[in-house]
Formats: sequence, structure tokens, C-alpha cells
Amino acid sequence: MLYYIAQYITDELSGTEWESTFSWLRLFKYITFRGAGAAITALLLSWWFGPRVIEWLKELKIRHEFQPDDTGTSSYVDPRKNPEKFGVPTMGGLMIVVIIDLTTLIWAQWIKLVILTLFAIILLCMLGFIDDFLKLKYRNTEGVRGFIKLYVQGGLTAFAACYLLFNKDTQNLISEVMVPFIKEPVLVGTTGAIVGVIITMLVIVGTSNAVNLTDGMDGLAIGCVIIVTFVFLVMTYVSGNVIFAKYLQVPYVPGSGELTVFCSALIGAGLGFLWFNCYPAMVFMGDTGSLALGGVLGMVAVLIHQPIVIAIAGAIFLIEALSVIIQRSYFKYTKHRYGEGRRVFKMAPIHHHFQKLGWKESQIVTRFYVITVLFAVLGLATLKIR
Amino acid sequence: MLYYIAQYITDELSGTEWESTFSWLRLFKYITFRGAGAAITALLLSWWFGPRVIEWLKELKIRHEFQPDDTGTSSYVDPRKNPEKFGVPTMGGLMIVVIIDLTTLIWAQWIKLVILTLFAIILLCMLGFIDDFLKLKYRNTEGVRGFIKLYVQGGLTAFAACYLLFNKDTQNLISEVMVPFIKEPVLVGTTGAIVGVIITMLVIVGTSNAVNLTDGMDGLAIGCVIIVTFVFLVMTYVSGNVIFAKYLQVPYVPGSGELTVFCSALIGAGLGFLWFNCYPAMVFMGDTGSLALGGVLGMVAVLIHQPIVIAIAGAIFLIEALSVIIQRSYFKYTKHRYGEGRRVFKMAPIHHHFQKLGWKESQIVTRFYVITVLFAVLGLATLKIR
Repeated sequence: MLYYIAQYITDELSGTEWESTFSWLRLFKYITFRGAGAAITALLLSWWFGPRVIEWLKELKIRHEFQPDDTGTSSYVDPRKNPEKFGVPTMGGLMIVVIIDLTTLIWAQWIKLVILTLFAIILLCMLGFIDDFLKLKYRNTEGVRGFIKLYVQGGLTAFAACYLLFNKDTQNLISEVMVPFIKEPVLVGTTGAIVGVIITMLVIVGTSNAVNLTDGMDGLAIGCVIIVTFVFLVMTYVSGNVIFAKYLQVPYVPGSGELTVFCSALIGAGLGFLWFNCYPAMVFMGDTGSLALGGVLGMVAVLIHQPIVIAIAGAIFLIEALSVIIQRSYFKYTKHRYGEGRRVFKMAPIHHHFQKLGWKESQIVTRFYVITVLFAVLGLATLKIR
Repeated sequence: MLYYIAQYITDELSGTEWESTFSWLRLFKYITFRGAGAAITALLLSWWFGPRVIEWLKELKIRHEFQPDDTGTSSYVDPRKNPEKFGVPTMGGLMIVVIIDLTTLIWAQWIKLVILTLFAIILLCMLGFIDDFLKLKYRNTEGVRGFIKLYVQGGLTAFAACYLLFNKDTQNLISEVMVPFIKEPVLVGTTGAIVGVIITMLVIVGTSNAVNLTDGMDGLAIGCVIIVTFVFLVMTYVSGNVIFAKYLQVPYVPGSGELTVFCSALIGAGLGFLWFNCYPAMVFMGDTGSLALGGVLGMVAVLIHQPIVIAIAGAIFLIEALSVIIQRSYFKYTKHRYGEGRRVFKMAPIHHHFQKLGWKESQIVTRFYVITVLFAVLGLATLKIR
């Protein structure tokens, strides 16, 4: 919005005596300036709204009371053993999503890529909200049934993929399948389109659910999301700049620089949420937050033609998801084979495994950040090593 | 070192049939590649050495037993009230400094700027080591007397400043005084040289002592140092690239790209140390680490002609130092004036003030990180807004 206002004023004043007085308005053209503005705005909004939202959620008694299921898989630590997690409000993701959307509308240009991204984050947030709501209502960990959730996520993603595919200027984002380290698309045409849609669905649905599983310790999911988003902040900036994109030989995606502003808003809102979510947490993001943040990271990766980078930079989410899949599969297999279920990890998702090994929650969270930074460096390395 | 090896092999093979087989060696020319390599190497080394160094320090019984002095100023939390801090080994900074030096020697070119930086970090580490050693020996918080410490730091800094000043190709780094947001040097010639030397001394000695004061909670100092170093990673890269430096109108400093490799090594070693230093800490860095890390940050800022950026990006260190100065001065003033010492903060450095307000240690540390990121964004903004 500010971009348009600055441009309007500049155009109106062009040729008048005021022109030079307002020349600083040119700053609003720069993505770096608007990015910094978005990050700071989102952080300030979070500081302002945070305490109010937490009070409001507390009054509504929006909080989880969870326990692990029999396969040793849990979204939250057993509250009976962790009295400090008891009564902490959830659905803080609402705050993150609203602030991201608001800040992005203020600082970014309202182009197709941005609107599609904001649309995706709101829809996934609503899905997560219903999920959280059902869990609260029936006081269990089930929420929206797994396959229904997958249908909704799949449907949303298929829509986004087809929208991109049937739009002339974004068609190639889907139909040209790119792989890191290789300069040219590996698939094009109809095959590319089909594979592209499948990859898009896998990436967005996968990331959404993987971040959801990661969200089980104070500050864990949001911190990792911030670090991975930083990778996409750099990626979107490079993709949106014709010179940098050519120099680094990544696909040039016109307008993707506006997604840099979106990523900045996400980082700002994320840091603001981390302020209240850090150990001991005053609020959880809930599925409301994790499904939305994960999905939108996948979305951004698809939009800049780098879907596979999310698997490298966001490997921590992949590891968390795999730990649950391995744990559940092995449990079912051994139960079927030997009559008793056995476990690979002491508990899944894997962050609880380390907890059972005696690591403190704050240690696990910080160490997962360190590992995420390592993966982020590897993700950024895909820019150079081609 | 690897740079020279890669270059040697490339030169030897030039024109032979092996030339194309080893063409990937060109990667070692890129600062980005060597930076990523340095960060990962330093992190891996930290993971490898960490547990061994901690065991070794424990065997030597190298640990602090501190208590606040009567002005309510403390380097560490009173261990009588924090039994969990008791017996944690200190001097972990030795590990950080050795790994940084080793990694930098492996991945960077051995140019003057790099050698001077490595030299500074080793000297300050030794000063910190003596400081820690005296504290351990006499079981008090005094260590090296304040004014002796200042003399040594001042002497070292004066040497570095004069070295730069009397070297033809680095002369302008000192004698041309630059200010953010202004494109041209504000002072040149002899005045510039005198002011430049004073600024250099203030920046390095100030940052060194400020980081030292910040180091009072698990993960606090090292986390903030990592974030601020990231700013200088970007700054050194821009300063060392003639195109970027010109585009962003910052002073072009030939060879400062090699300091990017140094900053990467620092970040990697820092992350590796954070792994063991995060709450609840298994090791402290001690003055051995904090004086060296702080000083070298100031050093890098001076070397790329951006001394004032450290006060913006590293504002958290400034705030910590000011809180101590304000607390002590006000205490002395009121004691003199009213006969009883009064306090501005519940306890200084300011992180303890928040602790007394009821924030948990892990909350204070994470929130200080968030604030440091905010200042880092402002520090980076100086690149653009000129």
C-alpha cells in the first residue's frame, strides 16, 4: 500500500517545487527498504497485540490438555508430567497470521503472487483453527480427521497449482520442473505440468504437516520457521532481481521480490511471537499457526521455482515428519509381526526422543535452531553451486 | 590455505588433460563457498571438541564462584541462589578462539587484514585468560585490575590503529572518518588520523568490555555475538566487492571479503559453542571468550571503515554497558549526596534487572536475541539509506 501512496505522491509532485523535498519517497521503491519496514512493523505489532491477544485467549479458556497416544507419538508433552504447560493458551497462530497479512498489505505491492500467498496462509489458518477448535471442544487430540485435513490441503494446493498453470505469466513456474544444481528445467510441457502439480501438492501439504509436527516445544517451530524463512527471503530477492538471478543462474520470477517483503513480515511476526512463545511459553501457536506457516513456506518455495530447496533448508521439518512416520509404521509392523508394538525412537516426533534422553527442553530447542541454521547454509549453497 | 592449494593445483594442471576434471576447484575462489565451508567446518570442529574440552576443564576444576558486589552489579548470577550454575566450567572461550583461528587459516587467504584480526583475537583471548585465571586463583570477582585491563586493551588497539595508519594501503581506513548515511568522509588528513585512532580505540575497547558485561546468562553473549557478526558478514562481503561497494556507496576495502570468511568461521564456532552453552549451560565462555569476541567485532568494524555500525547493530552491548555505568555512577552519586546508595536498575547489567522483574533466564535470553535481530536490521539498513 505504502508503495502506491509513495508513487502517487511522487507522480503528483513531479515537476513542482516540492519534488526534491519528497525525494526520500524513492526509498519505498526499494524492496530492501520495504522489507526492513515490514519486519519492524510486524515485530512492533506483535509486541503491541501480544499481551492483549494472550489475555483474550485466556479469558476464552482456549488451551490444550493433551496426552500421548499408545504409539508414543504426541503433539504436546503430557501435561500431567509438565504442570507448567497447563493452562497456556493456544491458537496464538491467529495473531501471527493476522499480523503477517496486515503488514504485507501495508508494505508490499498487491500483485498476483502476493495475493495468492496471503490467500493460502488464511485458508490454512482457517483449517488449523477448525482443527484446534474441535480438539478443544471434544478435549482430545484428534481434531479434524487426518484424511479430511489432507483432502482440504490437497484441494487448496491443487487449486493454487492449477491457478499458476493456467495463468500465462506464471505457467512456467509449474510446468518447468527445476532441480537444484542443474541449470535447465529437467522436465517441460505436459509431463512437466503433471509432475509440477504433484510436486507442488507434495511440497505444500508436506511442509504444512511437517511444521505442525515440529510444533511441540516452546519456541521450536517458530524459531525454525524464522530461520528457514530467512533462506527464502534471500531466494525470493535473488529470483526477483533480473541481474542477480542471471548471475546466480536461478529462474527469474518477475515480482517475486514482493515475496521478499512477505518473508520479512513473516520473520518480524515470527520474532514477535517468539517473544511470548519462548520457554516458558505464555502462548502456543496451535495448528492455527503451524499449518498456515508450514504451508505458506511450501507455497513460497513453489512460487519461486525452488520447491526442492525447502527439503534442504527445511530438513528439520522433514526429519520431524519422518520420525513420526518411521515410529508409527514400525510400531504397526512389529505389532502385526510379533504381537507387541516396538519403537525406533523413545518418543516421536523426534524432539521428544531427545527429551527422554535427558536433554532439557531449552537445550533441544536451541540445538534444533543450530541444526536448522546448518541446513539453511546448505540451502543457500544451492544458489552458488550450479 | 585451501585457496592456495586449489590455486596451486589449478595452475599445475592448466593445459593438461586433467584441467576440466578439476574445474570444480574454481569454487575455492568464491568467498561465498569458502564462507559456507568455514562456518560448517567451525561447527563440526565445535561438536567434535566440545565434549572433550568440557571434560578437560572440569578435571582442571576451572569454574567460577561469584557473588554480586554492593552496587548490585554482577558478572554472574549469585551461585548461592542458583545451584545449577555451580560447578559449570568456564574458559570455554579458549575453544571458540582456537577453532576460529584454525578454521580461518584453513579457508581464508592469509592477507594482512586477516592476520591482524587473528592476532587481535588471540591477544584479547590471552588477556581474558589471565583475567579468568586470577579470578579462579584468588576466588574473587576482581581478576585483572580494571585500569590494567584498559591499558592492555588500549595499547593493543593503539598498535592496531597505528599499524593501519602507517601502512600505505590501509592508511585511509583510519585517517578518513566515515559516518553512516553520509557518502563522503567527514574528516581527512591529520585531524582525521587523530580522530580515527581515537575512534578505533573506543570501538574496540568498548565492544570488548561491553560483550564481557553481556556475558552473564546462558547463551546470551554468544547468541548476540552471532547475530551481530552476521551483520558484519554482509558488510565485509559488500565492502570487499567492488561492484556492490560502489552500488551501495560504502567504502571499498580490497581484501575485506576474506574477513567474510573470518566472520563465517566466528558464526560457525559461535553456533557450536551455543550448542553447549544454551540453558542450562554445560560450559561458560568466561572473559577468555567475551573479551576476545567483543574486541574482534570492534576490530572488524574498524577494518571495513564502519566503526559506527557496531554501535547500531551491537546496540544490545552498548545498552548492557550503559546500564552498568548508570547503575554505578548513580549509586556513587547518591551515596555521596544522601549518604545511602540508590539504584536505577534492580540489578546491573540490565539482563539481571529483568530477572528481578520475574522474567525467566531463557525468556530474557530469547528476547534479547529478538531485540538484537531488530538492531541488526537497523545496522544493515545503514547500507541502503545513504
